[in-house]
Order: sequence, then structure tokens, then C-alpha cells
Amino acid sequence: MARNIGIVGAGIAGLHLALYLQKHGVDATIITDRPPEDYRDLRLLNTVAHHHVTIAREDYLGVNHWTDPKDHYYYHDHVFNFPEPLRFRGDFSKASRAVDYRLYLPALMQDFMKRGGKIEYRRIEERDIRPLVARFDLLVVSTGKGPLGQLFTYRPEHSPYQQPQRRLCVGLYTGVKQPDPMNVTLSVSPGHGEMIVIPTVTFGGIANALLMENVPGGDMEELATLSYDDNPKHFLKVLLGKLEKHHPTTYDRIDTARFDLAQPQDLLQGGVVPTVRNTMVEFDDGKCAIALGDVHAIVDPMMGQGANVASYAAFVLGEEIVNADACDARLCETIDLKRQDRVLAASRWTNVMLQPPTEALGMLIGAMSQNPALANEFTENFNYPDRQWDRISTPQRIQAWIERMSAPSEPVRAIA
Amino acid sequence: MARNIGIVGAGIAGLHLALYLQKHGVDATIITDRPPEDYRDLRLLNTVAHHHVTIAREDYLGVNHWTDPKDHYYYHDHVFNFPEPLRFRGDFSKASRAVDYRLYLPALMQDFMKRGGKIEYRRIEERDIRPLVARFDLLVVSTGKGPLGQLFTYRPEHSPYQQPQRRLCVGLYTGVKQPDPMNVTLSVSPGHGEMIVIPTVTFGGIANALLMENVPGGDMEELATLSYDDNPKHFLKVLLGKLEKHHPTTYDRIDTARFDLAQPQDLLQGGVVPTVRNTMVEFDDGKCAIALGDVHAIVDPMMGQGANVASYAAFVLGEEIVNADACDARLCETIDLKRQDRVLAASRWTNVMLQPPTEALGMLIGAMSQNPALANEFTENFNYPDRQWDRISTPQRIQAWIERMSAPSEPVRAIA
Repeated sequence: MARNIGIVGAGIAGLHLALYLQKHGVDATIITDRPPEDYRDLRLLNTVAHHHVTIAREDYLGVNHWTDPKDHYYYHDHVFNFPEPLRFRGDFSKASRAVDYRLYLPALMQDFMKRGGKIEYRRIEERDIRPLVARFDLLVVSTGKGPLGQLFTYRPEHSPYQQPQRRLCVGLYTGVKQPDPMNVTLSVSPGHGEMIVIPTVTFGGIANALLMENVPGGDMEELATLSYDDNPKHFLKVLLGKLEKHHPTTYDRIDTARFDLAQPQDLLQGGVVPTVRNTMVEFDDGKCAIALGDVHAIVDPMMGQGANVASYAAFVLGEEIVNADACDARLCETIDLKRQDRVLAASRWTNVMLQPPTEALGMLIGAMSQNPALANEFTENFNYPDRQWDRISTPQRIQAWIERMSAPSEPVRAIA
Repeated sequence: MARNIGIVGAGIAGLHLALYLQKHGVDATIITDRPPEDYRDLRLLNTVAHHHVTIAREDYLGVNHWTDPKDHYYYHDHVFNFPEPLRFRGDFSKASRAVDYRLYLPALMQDFMKRGGKIEYRRIEERDIRPLVARFDLLVVSTGKGPLGQLFTYRPEHSPYQQPQRRLCVGLYTGVKQPDPMNVTLSVSPGHGEMIVIPTVTFGGIANALLMENVPGGDMEELATLSYDDNPKHFLKVLLGKLEKHHPTTYDRIDTARFDLAQPQDLLQGGVVPTVRNTMVEFDDGKCAIALGDVHAIVDPMMGQGANVASYAAFVLGEEIVNADACDARLCETIDLKRQDRVLAASRWTNVMLQPPTEALGMLIGAMSQNPALANEFTENFNYPDRQWDRISTPQRIQAWIERMSAPSEPVRAIA
């Protein structure tokens, strides 16, 4: 069946879907308001780690341009800044990797265009929606910008917060030493927030993203509003003071003489209200618009899930579109049924981690510090948030998981 | 993890689940109000064909006691009693088979008990529900009888009817000749209803179920209330008159001298209101009751879907229970996500077929009569109602399916 798919938005979701459809001979047109050459000078967009399931999708699409093992990381380093500090690691089964999206997104746009893909550069207004729906067999909305996002109503049962739960201060920094091989550090300062340190491929080679997830009212909060531009030295001095106190193992990696933003525009401050939306709108003629990526479910960046589940969902859409007899409400239903568990699990898991840890989660942290297999599975499940949610969604499940992972791997046999 | 599962109801769903759990070493207790020895003298329970996906589950459970190929049927014979009659067949990829449930259910109960399974015989009242929930890790409700069914509220969006759409008259008859190999006949008398002729393993060998799906207000309707017991000869005379007029190809198979109910109690008259219910109730302590089978979704018997999707759903429950870390709301959610498309598709497809055919369905019937591959896929999809729904849920999908199946199987190549 000939199909013509419109994709509004050129984030990872829109691009992975467009490239998937292109690979399978399905006509796809990307509509975005930003040409690839405009990305170089933008302010930092985000800090995103791609887990190995996402890298495997890039390999499938032929867009994995960052294959140097020195650019990859292999484990999570967990640090809890308790009076008696707790530290342990969890290994991935395969490498992960982060690339600055000001490099990543235009590279994939170029891949798509070099292979004959069409990208239209325009801003979408309210009055454009009906003509877009009429023009394509299916309209995929992978941007929440402008009036398109508002097509999709919130699901209150999965949107528990009205406010950001963390005040974010995210930057790309030079002067933070890397271990060899590289890792991602998840450092927790109880009551004040988390910091995720992500070695990232940037314009100037590897730099470290410091993703500070600051608890409102905590000692780190001021970093979410403190201006770098007004007084870089003051910003860095305040930051170093906070790091020394709250995230000492990362502070110890810093060469203070070289410590600075990689570029002045490499800082992003703000916050995210985690929300989940309904995903499908059917128009009078039976044509549909379907939400994909952040406009479907936006999560706080703490657990590194947003881009990875957006890419996952893009592939679900791609597979179902390629196999479908029609681009209709039934197709959208099938897509939702297939993607929703992983997408919702990413949202639920992240939302739980934004709260002070329950007793059971505290017990899990303690058990992981003693049990590498448990810590490795927790880490590997960053690829599979649905499995993580199966493990940690209730105290009983956490308990059962710990017991299962603590049982001897071979039954002890009595000698006859 | 040790688990203790309570299953209320000993229909195909409860029994397939109990046997599945037993095979996997999970404690399961069946609770039913009827011991196996009581089935022999019951009035006919239903007429149920098991498609090959269901027979494969019976093989897996080691309860397929009806393996004689002479007891199986291999295709559907479609007859439309138009002024210009239309007739075509559709083949299954593997054999199907029907067994009288007064034989089938007690046989599986005995299998379960012989292997150490526990069955408790009691009627469940309102006051029994809480103690049952407390006693088991999960309570599976696979009977709509009594107060248990009312735990689960209706889903109005999937329960479009307030009344039965057919007035059923279902019996097991002697004196209807079988083709060799056997088939199931789906005979349609437009405006008056359908008759499904199902060769069935009964107490006295193969007999034919005549499942008459009579349209309210049509000429066949009176059969749903006409008494056999009051005057068997009159009943048979009226029936033969209707069959000659509305279902002539079946009438032609009848030896009128031998035509009668196989036993006086082999007749069931009534009707089904197709409904779908919510499937899970969580109690205060986090324990759950989950609906399975008819109490989840009850369909009109026309398309032979009820028992087959109940068995399918039983296996979904079994697999998820065996693999679960906890018997909780998350488990029920996972089960629902996995089973719902096929269960809902059986309901939707059947509900569509209860209405006068749309133009597109009429076109499909015409195309199937000319295209054996199309008729075969339609027939095979009795095993996979979700796939059937993908094919027929809209006129566009029917059109696309016909076009795809009508395309030449090899692309024609120009000779250079």
C-alpha cells in the first residue's frame, strides 16, 4: 500500500521514525522549523545518554557515526553522600554513549536528506493543522511546540505533578577527569538532589555533562537560576563549593584550573513537569494524528529515559506503519498497545525516583551495594524501563527481586 | 516465589489456567459448584468448536483426548441463500474439532485431579468473596455466576447492545450426513439469520450441532422458543420446514427418518447479550481479583470465538503468573495489556457480524467466493481474531486486503 507519512518535529523520535520509514520505502516528510546549519550556535538542548538498545537502532538505521569505543561508557557509578558514604557500580551488557544533540540531530537530518528524504522548514500554526492532516495518510506529531501538542489531552492518572520536581542546572564542562573506561556517575545528596555526570561527545571532543537535579528548597537549588553569563567566575566558584559538599567524588575529579563550561552557551537551566498525554486524534474523514516522543510522555531527565523510549516508540510506529493495511484509528490503537507499557514505565519509574526513597528502595540500594548481579540488572534495565518497573513498582516486588538475586545460583545437593 | 492461585469456575478458561499452573508447579485450587459426575445428565451447555490454536494448547497441557482425525474438521463451507446462491469454502491450515462440553469439562477436571489438583465444590455467595481474596495470592474469576461477576463493571464502549442480537436455538442432531472429510457449514439466510453446522464428538459419537442464530423478527425466530419437550414431532416438522426454506444445502444432507435430537436434553434455546467488562479489582491489602473468560468478554457464539479466546487468555494469565515476582495490580495490568487485543477483537468482529453486512463486507464475501487464498485466510483467522479485525475493521482495510490478496504473487518482469 502506498503511504505518505507527515512527521512534525525533528528530534530523535521524528528522525528515527523518518529514517526507519525511508529504509522500508515508505514516503515520509519531516516538517521542522530549524535547518541543520542552525544547530551549531544554539544553547545546549539537553544532555542525553543513548543506551545500547538505542545504539542498536542507530546501527539498524545506518546512522551510528560515533563508534569509537573511547567515546562510550560501560557502567554506572552510584554514589550516595551519606554520613557513611555508599558507593557501588552496575555494569551494562553493552556500551552506552552520549552525543551533544546539536551534533546528533543535524547529522541524522543530513543522513535522511542524503538518502532522498524531504524536510520542510516552517513553523506550524493552528490554521495549518487541518491542511496537514488532509495532506498525509497519517500525521505524526513529535513536537510539543505550538498548537500541535495541544491536540493531545493530558492523562491525569499518569500526570501526578503540576510543578517540576527538580530545578535543573545542566552544563557541558571541561576539566572533569574521566575514568578509563568511562562511566556515568549517579551521585545522590539526600535532600538536595542528584547529579548525573555523563561523558559526552561534543564539538570539542569528550566533555562532561553535569546534570544537576536539584530538589526545590535544597542547598543546590540556587544553581538553577544563578547566571553564568553575568559572572562566570562567581558561577563556577559557587558550583565548585556545592560540588565539594554534595558530590565529593565528582569534585575530586575536577581540575579547578581547567573547570569551565565547554562553551558559554553550554548551560541549560529550568525544569520539566512530567506529563503523559492521550496519543491519538481522529478527524472527521477518519484520518488520524498520533503523538510520539515528549508530546506523548515527557519525563524528568534523571533516569535518562526520554530519548531512549522516544526512539523505541518511533520504531514501534515504523514497524506498524510498514505492516499496516491502513493508516487509521485501528493502526494507532495497535501502536499504542505495543508501545505503552515501556513508555509508561519510563514515566512511572522516573516519577517514583523523584520522590524521597521508600524504605523498600532504600533496602534495594543497600542490597545492590552488596550484590553486583543485582546492581548490574538494575543498570541494564535502563534499557528496559518496563522490566525495571516490574522489579521496583511495589515493596513486595523489590523484596522478591532481592531474594531471587540473592539465592544461590545452584541448588545445594546433599551428598548421599 | 511460592504462589497460591484461586480459580472460581471450571469452564475452559478456569481449567486451562489450572492445568497450565499445575504443569508449572504453581499451586492452583479450582472452586466450582458442580462435580464431574453431574455433567452426564445436564442439558446441552453450548456448542463450541476448538480451533487449532486451542487444540495446540490442549496438546501442551496433555489433555487432548480426541485425536482421531475422523473426529476433526478441516474447512468452512460458506453458503449464502441468495436468489442466486453463493457457495465457497475456506480451508484451515490445521484441523479443528468440537467436543460436547459435558464430556470435555469433566474429562479435564479428572486430568487436573489425577495430577494432584484440588477442586472444591461449593457455591460462592457475596459473603465468601473477602475470605477468598484473603486466602489466595490472586483470585481468578472465570464464572459470571453469582455475585463474583458483579465485581467487574461493564465497559460501555465495548458493550453496544442491551439485548441479544440473535435468538438462539442450538441442538445436537442425528440424521445429518457428514461430508468426508468433515467441515463446518456457515449458512446464511439474509434477514433471517445464520446457521452453523458443527460436527461434534458427543456421548454417542459424532452428531451435528445445528447452531441457529435467528434474527429477531425473522422467519426463524420462533425456533428459539418452540418447545421440543411438549411435542417433539411438531418441533422437528417445523424445524425441517425452516431448514428447507432457509438453509437448503443443509436440509439436503438430512435423512428425515433419522433426524432428531441425539438426546432429549440436547437442546438449548436463548440468547446472549455481548458485553465486555473491566477485568481487575484491587482490594485494600493490595490483593486482586481478575476476570477471565466470559466474565471478561462474552460474545454471541456465531463466530466460535468465546471458548477459543478464553483458552488464549488463560494461557496469558498462566504465563504471566509463572513469571511474575508478585500477584498484584501490576501483574493484572501486564496480563490485560497482553490479552486485550485478541479478546476485544473477538468481541468487535462478532458484534460487526451480528449486523446486516456493510457494502464492504458484501464485497469481501464476493471476493472470497472467487479467491480461495482470501477465503482461506479469512478462515484461518478464526484462530486469530485480532488479525481478522486488522483485515475487516473498516471498508478501507477490507479493500486493501482484497487488493493485496488479488495481486499477482510474483512481480511480472519485462524481458530485456
